[in-house]
Amino acid sequence: MSVSIGELAVEFGCELRGDPGVVVERVATLADADERSVAFVANPRYRRELAATRAGAVVLDAAAAGACPAAALVCRNPHATYARIAAVLHPLPAAPAGIDPSAVVSPEAQVDPTAHVGALSVIGAGAAVGARAFIGPHCLIEEGVVVGEDVRLVGRVTLCRAVQVGARTVIQPGAVIGGDGFGFAQDQGRWIKVPQIGTVRVGCDVEIGANTTVDRGAIGDTVIEEGVKLDNLIQIGHNVRVGAHSALAACVGVSGSTCIGRRCMIAGQVGIAGHLTIGDDVVITARTGISHSITAPGVYSGHIPHEQAATWRRLVARFKRLESFATRLKALERRAGGAADREEDDD
Amino acid sequence: MSVSIGELAVEFGCELRGDPGVVVERVATLADADERSVAFVANPRYRRELAATRAGAVVLDAAAAGACPAAALVCRNPHATYARIAAVLHPLPAAPAGIDPSAVVSPEAQVDPTAHVGALSVIGAGAAVGARAFIGPHCLIEEGVVVGEDVRLVGRVTLCRAVQVGARTVIQPGAVIGGDGFGFAQDQGRWIKVPQIGTVRVGCDVEIGANTTVDRGAIGDTVIEEGVKLDNLIQIGHNVRVGAHSALAACVGVSGSTCIGRRCMIAGQVGIAGHLTIGDDVVITARTGISHSITAPGVYSGHIPHEQAATWRRLVARFKRLESFATRLKALERRAGGAADREEDDD
Amino acid sequence: MSVSIGELAVEFGCELRGDPGVVVERVATLADADERSVAFVANPRYRRELAATRAGAVVLDAAAAGACPAAALVCRNPHATYARIAAVLHPLPAAPAGIDPSAVVSPEAQVDPTAHVGALSVIGAGAAVGARAFIGPHCLIEEGVVVGEDVRLVGRVTLCRAVQVGARTVIQPGAVIGGDGFGFAQDQGRWIKVPQIGTVRVGCDVEIGANTTVDRGAIGDTVIEEGVKLDNLIQIGHNVRVGAHSALAACVGVSGSTCIGRRCMIAGQVGIAGHLTIGDDVVITARTGISHSITAPGVYSGHIPHEQAATWRRLVARFKRLESFATRLKALERRAGGAADREEDDD
Repeated sequence: MSVSIGELAVEFGCELRGDPGVVVERVATLADADERSVAFVANPRYRRELAATRAGAVVLDAAAAGACPAAALVCRNPHATYARIAAVLHPLPAAPAGIDPSAVVSPEAQVDPTAHVGALSVIGAGAAVGARAFIGPHCLIEEGVVVGEDVRLVGRVTLCRAVQVGARTVIQPGAVIGGDGFGFAQDQGRWIKVPQIGTVRVGCDVEIGANTTVDRGAIGDTVIEEGVKLDNLIQIGHNVRVGAHSALAACVGVSGSTCIGRRCMIAGQVGIAGHLTIGDDVVITARTGISHSITAPGVYSGHIPHEQAATWRRLVARFKRLESFATRLKALERRAGGAADREEDDD
Repeated sequence: MSVSIGELAVEFGCELRGDPGVVVERVATLADADERSVAFVANPRYRRELAATRAGAVVLDAAAAGACPAAALVCRNPHATYARIAAVLHPLPAAPAGIDPSAVVSPEAQVDPTAHVGALSVIGAGAAVGARAFIGPHCLIEEGVVVGEDVRLVGRVTLCRAVQVGARTVIQPGAVIGGDGFGFAQDQGRWIKVPQIGTVRVGCDVEIGANTTVDRGAIGDTVIEEGVKLDNLIQIGHNVRVGAHSALAACVGVSGSTCIGRRCMIAGQVGIAGHLTIGDDVVITARTGISHSITAPGVYSGHIPHEQAATWRRLVARFKRLESFATRLKALERRAGGAADREEDDD
Repeated sequence: MSVSIGELAVEFGCELRGDPGVVVERVATLADADERSVAFVANPRYRRELAATRAGAVVLDAAAAGACPAAALVCRNPHATYARIAAVLHPLPAAPAGIDPSAVVSPEAQVDPTAHVGALSVIGAGAAVGARAFIGPHCLIEEGVVVGEDVRLVGRVTLCRAVQVGARTVIQPGAVIGGDGFGFAQDQGRWIKVPQIGTVRVGCDVEIGANTTVDRGAIGDTVIEEGVKLDNLIQIGHNVRVGAHSALAACVGVSGSTCIGRRCMIAGQVGIAGHLTIGDDVVITARTGISHSITAPGVYSGHIPHEQAATWRRLVARFKRLESFATRLKALERRAGGAADREEDDD
């Protein structure tokens, strides 16, 4: 796809500094760009690379525009504008409307005639696929599933019985939406399976990453609200609710019945215990474990960075003797007089 | 499915307080229940919701029964009885016996005529599928696999070569049982693959979650004993043994050759190193790392809960100076006289 | 497969102590071996089992050979030699050249006539599959993918658009190579998807484990260099580079744009933040979180081993009061005179 930067400026509301007739056909990094490429700068760190770029045009903000050696597309949010331009220059491959002859589609399913159903996909009875939806190859869409308009299931996506997926949502390969939650009752040393009779409701404009799992509700539904972004290999337990526009990075685990607020940002390998409430606008840094609810917006952490192994071993040994440290400190304070009284809540 | 609570009381051995002719047709939470629903109380916390429920009947224990505004199904273990009633009211969709015409089944496989094989499943030579087994769509059952009676492979389950699955076991989508273990020998800076010639033996009444992986043995087999429950996204390394009726929550990793006892409960994101022995009745709390064997039953932990980021940063800074703390504490004790001698094993 | 140990000695350069006519047909552990089995010893710990073995032959080094009660195949690296012998005795099942009639292969794909394409695999337009490649059942090979010679996709492997896989690489079931990276730009409280226009280049002799995910590059490619071994359930973010012959154990997460050196060994459940550089020959022990770059070779750690829960709770309580400890220690030092001055950088 090739387009003039004049057209881009008009379409995306940029101020253009340079020749509107310059034609670009791809996006690239500042370092790799050539005269047919558009690059972007969202971070002052890249000013040096900006000076040296051979890009045909650069998307940047007014503060950076003065240093731009090429045509400048000046805007308030260069990263978002870049994302929109990249989508124009690099459209997804077109997929023909219709059902691949190798797909197995129940006669009781409703597939919009403008939707695409790829090779060897399975669609069960009572399922509905909306207009312009893209169902890639090897998808499994069970009975009663509802897939909204313009949804994109990249391929090999599993939507279990009665799962609902909102418009424009994108799901990457290997994701399993609506597997049974982990519900068992103990009875005389054995586990009795508790039927998981809820489902999963995924909102509009959600993205779900590769091999991520979202369990169906035990009673009532698991809910992923609109605009949520889930990275790869995430586990969402039964009856969890993830609030609108929250983003969870890879390998996060959220236990059952926890409610996460809106616009939260949860970094990689975080774990959140069950039955908690995390408020809106909470940021959790990588590898933190959350074992009680968080009501106030803010940044929360719980990870200790690495050391060389020998140093770390000594630190762990000291940590394991913190009880003894506390006792010894208190003994010294007693001897020194008075101090221990001030700190008696410390035991 | 609708049923009278009189019948339920007889079938599940409950004492009935109320009209046996009340008919229920679904389960629900205390809050959501209507007169056609049966709810349950297993936790005194829910007494207030019990008082307000509009359920047709409630499953509870004798202690709670007095406060029940509806018909009461009184039993010793309300959670387990609820699970059994839910299974009656919400049966799984029936699946016809026989092989879907789109499935690819080796003529050298043995599929019991009462089993169901779903769309686009593949069954290799020498595989055997037992009576009433449900093989959902998109399953991959390789050569020589044995699937027991009444097994339920929900869909898109992979059972690699020669894997054995016991009766009544349930496996969720995306699970991979019998992939090669991570076995490599180092040779002059390169890795030589060690053939993984064992398999996986999964016992009866096991449940395995979505996208969980259980590696085949290097020599000898990986074993998941009867009644084990594995949640989603768990990794079980080669030659691990998980003892009967143990339950592992999501995102747990168990390294190769480790042996876990019976009736253990292992919470989410726990990691267990290789070649360890974990005894029976061990409970490990969430996010704990286990790097040496555990012989005694009990509860084990290793996770530090989160703080606000600024507080946490200060704690980490202090932690990283524990060596210095120890030195300073000792110096003070030396000055104070005597104390350091008592603690000299502390260095 | 059966073979004389004389032939094995010649083929793998071992010194043979014993009858070259002894025939073996399988590998086994020292304890389980019979006279038709070959076992190995790579660890002095197993000397006692060596003395008691009934193996037909044992692979070991010169130091252990004296204690061997059976024929000895003496070599420098018994583990690597064992691996090679096991591959001879336990060859993978042969797969016929050609495309299974149930596979869906684009007429615009190029499949070498010596390659095997299994049941219900899908190969898109412009894809190329090299000589003797094994594409197991249920694989999804999208448009423009290049699969090298002798590659083995065990089954149910997903290679997204334009992914490249080098010769002899092995990929286990459920792995997703080339899903979209987690790239979003924030715009007025919403996330705008950043098109992920790079791909993934996987080198030769790589192994990728079950349900592992490797994201395609945002701009430019994600790169897995030759000889790398990735275990199960690993997440590799967009634009990561993993250097040649590095090995990553299960459940590791590597965030975007991080560069890992050559010959690194990264243990289970490690997490590595984004945009970091990890040098060559770095070893990271299990469950460590890496939040800054590592330049020097060596061993790095960051995990605190478990304790009984009651002990651990007390340690956590002490840890959470480290600020108070520091203050009290300083106060004591002030009183004692002088010491605090020496340590003032400690605040």
